[in-house]
Amino acid sequence: MRVLGVDPGLTRCGIGVVSGTVGRPLELVAVGVVRTPAGQDHAHRLLAIETGIEEWVTAYRPEAIAVERVFAQHNLQSVTGTSQAAGIAMLVAARHAIPVVLHTPSEVKAAITGSGRADKAQVGAMVARILKLAEPPKPADAADAVALAICHIWRGAATNRYAEAVAKATTGRTNRIPSRGRA
Amino acid sequence: MRVLGVDPGLTRCGIGVVSGTVGRPLELVAVGVVRTPAGQDHAHRLLAIETGIEEWVTAYRPEAIAVERVFAQHNLQSVTGTSQAAGIAMLVAARHAIPVVLHTPSEVKAAITGSGRADKAQVGAMVARILKLAEPPKPADAADAVALAICHIWRGAATNRYAEAVAKATTGRTNRIPSRGRA
Repeated sequence: MRVLGVDPGLTRCGIGVVSGTVGRPLELVAVGVVRTPAGQDHAHRLLAIETGIEEWVTAYRPEAIAVERVFAQHNLQSVTGTSQAAGIAMLVAARHAIPVVLHTPSEVKAAITGSGRADKAQVGAMVARILKLAEPPKPADAADAVALAICHIWRGAATNRYAEAVAKATTGRTNRIPSRGRA
Repeated sequence: MRVLGVDPGLTRCGIGVVSGTVGRPLELVAVGVVRTPAGQDHAHRLLAIETGIEEWVTAYRPEAIAVERVFAQHNLQSVTGTSQAAGIAMLVAARHAIPVVLHTPSEVKAAITGSGRADKAQVGAMVARILKLAEPPKPADAADAVALAICHIWRGAATNRYAEAVAKATTGRTNRIPSRGRA
Protein backbone atom coordinates (compact mmCIF):
# COMPACT_ATOMS: atom_id res chain seq x y z
CA MET A 1 0.00 0.00 0.00
CA ARG A 2 0.99 3.62 -0.50
CA VAL A 3 0.88 5.76 2.64
CA LEU A 4 1.29 9.51 3.02
CA GLY A 5 2.64 10.55 6.42
CA VAL A 6 2.11 14.05 7.80
CA ASP A 7 4.14 15.57 10.64
CA PRO A 8 1.85 18.55 11.26
CA GLY A 9 3.13 22.05 11.96
CA LEU A 10 2.22 25.63 11.11
CA THR A 11 5.73 26.67 10.02
CA ARG A 12 6.84 23.32 8.59
CA CYS A 13 4.53 20.43 7.77
CA GLY A 14 6.65 17.37 6.96
CA ILE A 15 5.24 15.08 4.27
CA GLY A 16 6.50 11.67 3.19
CA VAL A 17 5.09 9.03 0.86
CA VAL A 18 6.15 5.40 1.33
CA SER A 19 5.06 2.37 -0.66
CA GLY A 20 5.21 -1.31 0.33
CA THR A 21 3.79 -4.04 2.53
CA VAL A 22 4.75 -5.75 5.78
CA GLY A 23 7.58 -8.24 5.29
CA ARG A 24 8.90 -6.72 2.07
CA PRO A 25 11.36 -3.87 1.40
CA LEU A 26 9.69 -0.47 1.53
CA GLU A 27 10.24 2.25 -1.05
CA LEU A 28 10.40 6.02 -0.52
CA VAL A 29 8.16 7.56 -3.18
CA ALA A 30 8.57 11.25 -2.22
CA VAL A 31 9.43 13.45 0.72
CA GLY A 32 9.21 17.18 1.38
CA VAL A 33 7.91 19.98 3.52
CA VAL A 34 4.99 22.40 3.20
CA ARG A 35 6.28 25.68 4.67
CA THR A 36 4.36 28.83 5.58
CA PRO A 37 6.04 32.16 6.38
CA ALA A 38 5.84 33.20 10.05
CA GLY A 39 5.01 36.77 8.96
CA GLN A 40 1.85 35.75 7.09
CA ASP A 41 -1.47 35.99 8.90
CA HIS A 42 -2.74 32.83 10.56
CA ALA A 43 -5.73 32.20 8.29
CA HIS A 44 -3.62 32.41 5.13
CA ARG A 45 -1.01 30.07 6.62
CA LEU A 46 -3.76 27.50 7.20
CA LEU A 47 -4.94 27.98 3.62
CA ALA A 48 -1.37 27.46 2.35
CA ILE A 49 -1.11 24.22 4.36
CA GLU A 50 -4.39 23.00 2.91
CA THR A 51 -3.28 23.85 -0.64
CA GLY A 52 0.06 22.10 -0.08
CA ILE A 53 -1.39 18.90 1.38
CA GLU A 54 -4.09 18.85 -1.30
CA GLU A 55 -1.34 18.98 -3.97
CA TRP A 56 0.53 16.07 -2.37
CA VAL A 57 -2.62 13.97 -2.08
CA THR A 58 -3.62 14.70 -5.66
CA ALA A 59 -0.11 14.00 -6.98
CA TYR A 60 0.51 10.74 -5.08
CA ARG A 61 -3.00 9.37 -4.44
CA PRO A 62 -2.16 7.54 -1.19
CA GLU A 63 -4.39 4.70 0.05
CA ALA A 64 -4.01 5.87 3.65
CA ILE A 65 -2.88 9.00 5.47
CA ALA A 66 -0.98 8.75 8.77
CA VAL A 67 -0.95 11.88 10.93
CA GLU A 68 1.00 12.43 14.13
CA ARG A 69 -1.30 12.67 17.14
CA VAL A 70 -0.79 16.07 18.76
CA PHE A 71 -0.18 16.33 22.49
CA ALA A 72 -0.10 19.26 24.89
CA GLN A 73 3.27 20.96 25.00
CA HIS A 74 4.63 23.85 27.03
CA ASN A 75 3.57 26.35 24.39
CA LEU A 76 -0.20 26.55 23.87
CA GLN A 77 0.15 28.78 20.80
CA SER A 78 2.25 26.11 19.10
CA VAL A 79 -0.21 23.34 20.07
CA THR A 80 -3.02 25.34 18.47
CA GLY A 81 -1.16 25.72 15.17
CA THR A 82 -0.02 22.09 15.22
CA SER A 83 -3.46 20.69 15.95
CA GLN A 84 -4.99 22.93 13.28
CA ALA A 85 -2.46 21.67 10.73
CA ALA A 86 -3.27 18.07 11.79
CA GLY A 87 -6.97 18.86 11.44
CA ILE A 88 -6.43 20.18 7.91
CA ALA A 89 -4.56 17.00 6.93
CA MET A 90 -7.53 14.96 8.24
CA LEU A 91 -9.97 17.24 6.45
CA VAL A 92 -8.19 16.79 3.11
CA ALA A 93 -8.09 13.01 3.65
CA ALA A 94 -11.83 12.87 4.40
CA ARG A 95 -12.56 14.99 1.31
CA HIS A 96 -10.76 12.38 -0.82
CA ALA A 97 -12.34 9.46 1.11
CA ILE A 98 -8.88 8.28 2.16
CA PRO A 99 -8.67 6.54 5.57
CA VAL A 100 -6.76 8.49 8.25
CA VAL A 101 -4.99 7.01 11.23
CA LEU A 102 -3.27 8.93 14.03
CA HIS A 103 -0.07 7.58 15.58
CA THR A 104 1.58 8.97 18.69
CA PRO A 105 5.25 10.03 18.51
CA SER A 106 6.23 7.14 20.80
CA GLU A 107 4.37 4.59 18.65
CA VAL A 108 6.31 5.84 15.64
CA LYS A 109 9.67 5.80 17.43
CA ALA A 110 9.00 2.31 18.79
CA ALA A 111 7.98 1.00 15.36
CA ILE A 112 11.05 2.46 13.64
CA THR A 113 13.84 2.08 16.21
CA GLY A 114 12.50 -0.41 18.75
CA SER A 115 12.43 2.29 21.45
CA GLY A 116 9.61 4.75 22.15
CA ARG A 117 12.21 7.15 23.55
CA ALA A 118 14.54 7.34 20.55
CA ASP A 119 15.79 10.82 19.61
CA LYS A 120 15.36 12.52 16.23
CA ALA A 121 18.84 11.48 15.01
CA GLN A 122 18.13 7.80 15.74
CA VAL A 123 14.76 7.97 13.95
CA GLY A 124 16.37 9.69 10.94
CA ALA A 125 19.19 7.12 10.80
CA MET A 126 16.75 4.19 10.91
CA VAL A 127 14.52 5.77 8.26
CA ALA A 128 17.57 6.03 5.97
CA ARG A 129 18.53 2.41 6.68
CA ILE A 130 15.01 1.02 6.17
CA LEU A 131 14.59 2.84 2.86
CA LYS A 132 18.21 2.39 1.72
CA LEU A 133 18.88 6.13 1.49
CA ALA A 134 22.37 7.64 1.55
CA GLU A 135 21.30 9.92 4.42
CA PRO A 136 18.19 10.78 6.48
CA PRO A 137 15.58 13.02 4.82
CA LYS A 138 15.95 16.64 5.95
CA PRO A 139 14.67 18.61 7.77
CA ALA A 140 13.69 16.44 10.77
CA ASP A 141 9.97 17.13 10.06
CA ALA A 142 10.37 15.42 6.68
CA ALA A 143 12.11 12.40 8.26
CA ASP A 144 9.36 12.22 10.91
CA ALA A 145 6.67 12.21 8.22
CA VAL A 146 8.42 9.33 6.44
CA ALA A 147 8.72 7.49 9.79
CA LEU A 148 4.96 7.93 10.30
CA ALA A 149 4.24 6.38 6.91
CA ILE A 150 6.56 3.43 7.64
CA CYS A 151 4.99 2.97 11.08
CA HIS A 152 1.56 2.92 9.50
CA ILE A 153 2.49 0.22 7.01
CA TRP A 154 4.21 -1.90 9.67
CA ARG A 155 1.51 -1.59 12.31
CA GLY A 156 -0.38 -3.26 9.59
CA ALA A 157 -3.51 -4.98 8.70
CA ALA A 158 -5.81 -4.72 11.72
CA THR A 159 -5.58 -0.96 12.24
CA ASN A 160 -5.76 -0.24 8.54
CA ARG A 161 -8.80 -2.43 8.00
CA TYR A 162 -10.60 -0.62 10.81
CA ALA A 163 -9.84 2.80 9.28
CA GLU A 164 -10.95 1.60 5.86
CA ALA A 165 -14.20 0.30 7.29
CA VAL A 166 -14.83 3.66 8.96
CA ALA A 167 -14.05 5.57 5.77
CA LYS A 168 -16.32 3.27 3.81
CA ALA A 169 -19.19 3.47 6.31
CA THR A 170 -19.08 7.26 6.60
CA THR A 171 -18.67 8.14 2.93
CA GLY A 172 -20.45 5.32 1.17
CA ARG A 173 -17.67 5.38 -1.43
CA THR A 174 -15.96 2.04 -1.80
CA ASN A 175 -13.92 2.70 -4.92
CA ARG A 176 -10.92 4.05 -3.03
CA ILE A 177 -10.68 1.18 -0.55
CA PRO A 178 -7.69 -0.83 -1.74
CA SER A 179 -8.59 -4.48 -2.10
CA ARG A 180 -5.01 -5.62 -1.55
CA GLY A 181 -5.12 -4.47 2.07
CA ARG A 182 -8.00 -6.81 2.84
CA ALA A 183 -6.74 -10.10 1.45
CA MET B 1 -21.01 45.84 7.47
CA ARG B 2 -22.15 42.23 7.56
CA VAL B 3 -20.24 40.00 9.98
CA LEU B 4 -20.38 36.23 10.41
CA GLY B 5 -19.51 35.08 13.94
CA VAL B 6 -18.30 31.54 14.65
CA ASP B 7 -18.30 29.93 18.09
CA PRO B 8 -16.11 26.94 17.18
CA GLY B 9 -16.79 23.42 18.40
CA LEU B 10 -16.57 19.88 17.09
CA THR B 11 -20.07 18.84 18.23
CA ARG B 12 -21.78 22.21 17.81
CA CYS B 13 -20.35 25.14 15.87
CA GLY B 14 -22.52 28.20 16.54
CA ILE B 15 -22.93 30.59 13.59
CA GLY B 16 -24.55 34.02 13.54
CA VAL B 17 -24.72 36.75 10.90
CA VAL B 18 -25.28 40.35 12.00
CA SER B 19 -25.53 43.46 9.85
CA GLY B 20 -25.03 47.11 10.83
CA THR B 21 -22.55 49.78 11.87
CA VAL B 22 -21.41 51.38 15.11
CA GLY B 23 -23.98 53.86 16.46
CA ARG B 24 -26.94 52.43 14.56
CA PRO B 25 -29.35 49.58 15.39
CA LEU B 26 -27.97 46.18 14.40
CA GLU B 27 -29.95 43.54 12.56
CA LEU B 28 -29.81 39.75 12.99
CA VAL B 29 -29.56 38.30 9.48
CA ALA B 30 -29.37 34.59 10.38
CA VAL B 31 -28.38 32.29 13.21
CA GLY B 32 -27.86 28.55 13.51
CA VAL B 33 -25.57 25.70 14.40
CA VAL B 34 -23.41 23.30 12.38
CA ARG B 35 -23.62 19.97 14.22
CA THR B 36 -21.57 16.83 13.76
CA PRO B 37 -22.51 13.45 15.29
CA ALA B 38 -20.22 12.30 18.13
CA GLY B 39 -20.22 8.78 16.67
CA GLN B 40 -18.73 9.87 13.34
CA ASP B 41 -14.97 9.60 12.85
CA HIS B 42 -12.94 12.72 13.55
CA ALA B 43 -11.82 13.45 9.97
CA HIS B 44 -15.38 13.31 8.64
CA ARG B 45 -16.61 15.58 11.44
CA LEU B 46 -14.02 18.16 10.37
CA LEU B 47 -15.17 17.79 6.77
CA ALA B 48 -18.80 18.32 7.84
CA ILE B 49 -17.79 21.49 9.71
CA GLU B 50 -15.98 22.80 6.64
CA THR B 51 -18.96 22.03 4.40
CA GLY B 52 -21.33 23.73 6.85
CA ILE B 53 -19.27 26.91 7.26
CA GLU B 54 -18.65 27.06 3.52
CA GLU B 55 -22.44 26.97 2.96
CA TRP B 56 -23.00 29.83 5.42
CA VAL B 57 -20.25 31.95 3.88
CA THR B 58 -21.55 31.33 0.36
CA ALA B 59 -25.15 32.06 1.37
CA TYR B 60 -24.51 35.25 3.36
CA ARG B 61 -21.28 36.64 1.86
CA PRO B 62 -20.03 38.37 5.04
CA GLU B 63 -17.46 41.18 4.82
CA ALA B 64 -15.68 39.90 7.92
CA ILE B 65 -15.58 36.70 9.98
CA ALA B 66 -15.17 36.84 13.77
CA VAL B 67 -13.97 33.65 15.45
CA GLU B 68 -13.69 32.99 19.18
CA ARG B 69 -10.07 32.67 20.27
CA VAL B 70 -9.57 29.23 21.79
CA PHE B 71 -7.87 28.86 25.18
CA ALA B 72 -6.57 25.86 27.07
CA GLN B 73 -9.23 24.14 29.09
CA HIS B 74 -9.18 21.18 31.45
CA ASN B 75 -9.89 18.76 28.63
CA LEU B 76 -7.16 18.60 25.97
CA GLN B 77 -9.28 16.45 23.66
CA SER B 78 -11.93 19.16 23.58
CA VAL B 79 -9.34 21.92 22.99
CA THR B 80 -8.01 20.00 20.01
CA GLY B 81 -11.45 19.69 18.40
CA THR B 82 -12.32 23.30 19.20
CA SER B 83 -9.09 24.73 17.82
CA GLN B 84 -9.42 22.57 14.70
CA ALA B 85 -12.96 23.88 14.15
CA ALA B 86 -11.66 27.44 14.63
CA GLY B 87 -8.85 26.71 12.16
CA ILE B 88 -11.37 25.48 9.58
CA ALA B 89 -13.44 28.68 9.96
CA MET B 90 -10.24 30.70 9.35
CA LEU B 91 -9.33 28.50 6.39
CA VAL B 92 -12.72 29.02 4.75
CA ALA B 93 -12.45 32.78 5.35
CA ALA B 94 -8.98 32.94 3.76
CA ARG B 95 -10.20 30.91 0.78
CA HIS B 96 -12.89 33.56 0.17
CA ALA B 97 -10.45 36.44 0.90
CA ILE B 98 -12.63 37.55 3.81
CA PRO B 99 -10.79 39.21 6.74
CA VAL B 100 -10.79 37.16 9.97
CA VAL B 101 -10.45 38.55 13.49
CA LEU B 102 -10.24 36.53 16.70
CA HIS B 103 -11.91 37.81 19.85
CA THR B 104 -11.46 36.31 23.31
CA PRO B 105 -14.55 35.24 25.29
CA SER B 106 -13.97 38.05 27.80
CA GLU B 107 -13.67 40.68 25.03
CA VAL B 108 -17.02 39.50 23.69
CA LYS B 109 -18.69 39.47 27.11
CA ALA B 110 -17.33 42.93 27.91
CA ALA B 111 -18.50 44.35 24.57
CA ILE B 112 -22.01 42.92 24.93
CA THR B 113 -22.77 43.18 28.66
CA GLY B 114 -20.16 45.61 29.99
CA SER B 115 -18.55 42.84 32.08
CA GLY B 116 -15.88 40.38 30.93
CA ARG B 117 -17.20 37.92 33.52
CA ALA B 118 -20.86 37.82 32.45
CA ASP B 119 -22.45 34.35 32.32
CA LYS B 120 -24.11 32.76 29.29
CA ALA B 121 -27.62 33.80 30.37
CA GLN B 122 -26.57 37.47 30.63
CA VAL B 123 -24.90 37.36 27.21
CA GLY B 124 -27.99 35.71 25.66
CA ALA B 125 -30.33 38.27 27.26
CA MET B 126 -28.25 41.21 26.02
CA VAL B 127 -28.01 39.72 22.51
CA ALA B 128 -31.82 39.50 22.43
CA ARG B 129 -32.14 43.09 23.68
CA ILE B 130 -29.57 44.52 21.23
CA LEU B 131 -31.18 42.80 18.25
CA LYS B 132 -34.79 43.26 19.47
CA LEU B 133 -35.51 39.53 19.57
CA ALA B 134 -38.33 37.98 21.61
CA GLU B 135 -35.80 35.63 23.25
CA PRO B 136 -32.08 34.73 23.08
CA PRO B 137 -30.97 32.57 20.13
CA LYS B 138 -30.64 28.90 21.15
CA PRO B 139 -28.56 26.89 21.85
CA ALA B 140 -26.00 28.99 23.77
CA ASP B 141 -23.39 28.35 21.01
CA ALA B 142 -25.66 30.15 18.53
CA ALA B 143 -26.12 33.11 20.91
CA ASP B 144 -22.34 33.23 21.46
CA ALA B 145 -21.74 33.34 17.71
CA VAL B 146 -24.16 36.27 17.36
CA ALA B 147 -22.43 38.00 20.30
CA LEU B 148 -19.08 37.58 18.50
CA ALA B 149 -20.46 39.23 15.38
CA ILE B 150 -21.89 42.15 17.41
CA CYS B 151 -18.59 42.52 19.30
CA HIS B 152 -16.74 42.65 16.01
CA ILE B 153 -18.92 45.42 14.61
CA TRP B 154 -18.75 47.45 17.83
CA ARG B 155 -15.01 47.09 18.38
CA GLY B 156 -15.05 48.83 15.10
CA ALA B 157 -13.04 50.55 12.53
CA ALA B 158 -9.39 50.28 13.59
CA THR B 159 -9.30 46.50 14.05
CA ASN B 160 -11.36 45.86 10.94
CA ARG B 161 -9.22 48.07 8.74
CA TYR B 162 -6.12 46.23 9.90
CA ALA B 163 -7.65 42.83 9.05
CA GLU B 164 -8.76 44.10 5.66
CA ALA B 165 -5.26 45.39 4.91
CA VAL B 166 -3.81 41.99 5.84
CA ALA B 167 -6.34 40.14 3.70
CA LYS B 168 -5.63 42.48 0.79
CA ALA B 169 -1.84 42.23 1.14
CA THR B 170 -1.77 38.45 1.40
CA THR B 171 -4.23 37.58 -1.35
CA GLY B 172 -3.82 40.41 -3.80
CA ARG B 173 -7.59 40.34 -4.30
CA THR B 174 -9.16 43.68 -3.59
CA ASN B 175 -12.64 43.11 -4.95
CA ARG B 176 -13.96 41.69 -1.69
CA ILE B 177 -12.66 44.48 0.54
CA PRO B 178 -15.71 46.59 1.38
CA SER B 179 -15.06 50.25 0.64
CA ARG B 180 -17.58 51.43 3.21
CA GLY B 181 -15.35 50.22 6.05
CA ARG B 182 -12.54 52.51 4.98
CA ALA B 183 -14.30 55.86 4.66
